[in-house]
Amino acid sequence: MYQITVCFTPAQFSYYHYEGCNAVAIDILRATTSICTAIMNGAKEVIPVSSVDELQNFTGRDILIAAERDGIKLDFADIGNSPLYFTRELVEGRTIAFSTTNGTHTINLAAKCHSVAIGAFINMSAVCRWLEDGKRDVFLLCAGWKGRFNLEDTIFAGAVAQKLIETGKFTTTCDSALAAIDLWSTANPNLKQYITKAEHHERLRKINAADAIPYCFNLDTTNIVPIFKNGAIKTEKI
Amino acid sequence: MYQITVCFTPAQFSYYHYEGCNAVAIDILRATTSICTAIMNGAKEVIPVSSVDELQNFTGRDILIAAERDGIKLDFADIGNSPLYFTRELVEGRTIAFSTTNGTHTINLAAKCHSVAIGAFINMSAVCRWLEDGKRDVFLLCAGWKGRFNLEDTIFAGAVAQKLIETGKFTTTCDSALAAIDLWSTANPNLKQYITKAEHHERLRKINAADAIPYCFNLDTTNIVPIFKNGAIKTEKI
Repeated sequence: MYQITVCFTPAQFSYYHYEGCNAVAIDILRATTSICTAIMNGAKEVIPVSSVDELQNFTGRDILIAAERDGIKLDFADIGNSPLYFTRELVEGRTIAFSTTNGTHTINLAAKCHSVAIGAFINMSAVCRWLEDGKRDVFLLCAGWKGRFNLEDTIFAGAVAQKLIETGKFTTTCDSALAAIDLWSTANPNLKQYITKAEHHERLRKINAADAIPYCFNLDTTNIVPIFKNGAIKTEKI
Repeated sequence: MYQITVCFTPAQFSYYHYEGCNAVAIDILRATTSICTAIMNGAKEVIPVSSVDELQNFTGRDILIAAERDGIKLDFADIGNSPLYFTRELVEGRTIAFSTTNGTHTINLAAKCHSVAIGAFINMSAVCRWLEDGKRDVFLLCAGWKGRFNLEDTIFAGAVAQKLIETGKFTTTCDSALAAIDLWSTANPNLKQYITKAEHHERLRKINAADAIPYCFNLDTTNIVPIFKNGAIKTEKI
């Protein structure tokens, strides 16, 4: 039986055993949903960039720059972090340099694990198949919000953990995984309603960026599994 | 309306707003349950000591030393960290120097808040009354386990948050508080059964220290609220 670990925030990463695990980087609202959308719509690759300074090295080249802080597009970026921006017309065949408040740091941190997939509700079942085929312990790393726990990433982690356990090949003795599963059970019957109480839902509403939220909770609209390897995220179709 | 924040581990403390809050330090299995028991049974004061080195300064004096690491009593300590040890016969009128894996560090960290109470299921309603009388925002600090989330502290935090919200004087927009409340709702109908799946339940069982677990989930067996002030924990009866 393979073990499932859930880590609620990058701030706790070093306290968990992640070595040798297949990891999923999770930032449902909105980074990992946006990355899945970009890859689904034919982007060549997405380069996650943690700092704004580093991101500026990508300007002035044929690279699309997608970047936000606190939900708001950075001045010099081409687009912000809504998955609705990553249309086929805009992204097909392109390299995207991508930087967000929590998501990109999370992805770079997850790279300490064996392999890293980008997970969102829109590719959840494909991610679960990738994990099942991977035959390794699983590490689900939530982006949270600036070191703090968040509901939407945790609920997704719970949904993945539950689905893996149902295969009979995975188990967990990790309290945060057990909590995530229970929260998923509570949220699942009415996910889009449940999530309206989340802090980040309110934060996005306040900056008039709530339009993409329902999209972020659509289930399995793609079978793409973006994989982060050698500094870039590219497709792996399952 | 006063705001409730829940912080799942000391590792995340600095990411939350705790300034000016009344705090509750929570380490259900077993530090804060033991401290409540000691004060309930007439201990003069409990001094939480974070490091083993520092604790050795308390030896050779008329001070009871209660200390464990990873659930096991330290060699030079008089007793370990089971609440069952803190009988009236042993502790009445005495000063106790107290050090545990996670609990004492949590208490010392919580001291950055306005006031700090020691919370456990055995004094839960009294702690809630203290918070209500305090008329301030509330910060519930869980000890967790070595930087990781744990179920038992979170469920207690959820129970307190729920009880405070029911007074109509408190609210929360904090995702970890909302999650804690939902986990409490799941656990509450059969708390002692629910908690058997927790990591620390298994850890205590493995070292033959599970005998105190049922005691730690008894509700409101005392109306004592131990308060941490100027380096020592003393009684405040509500």
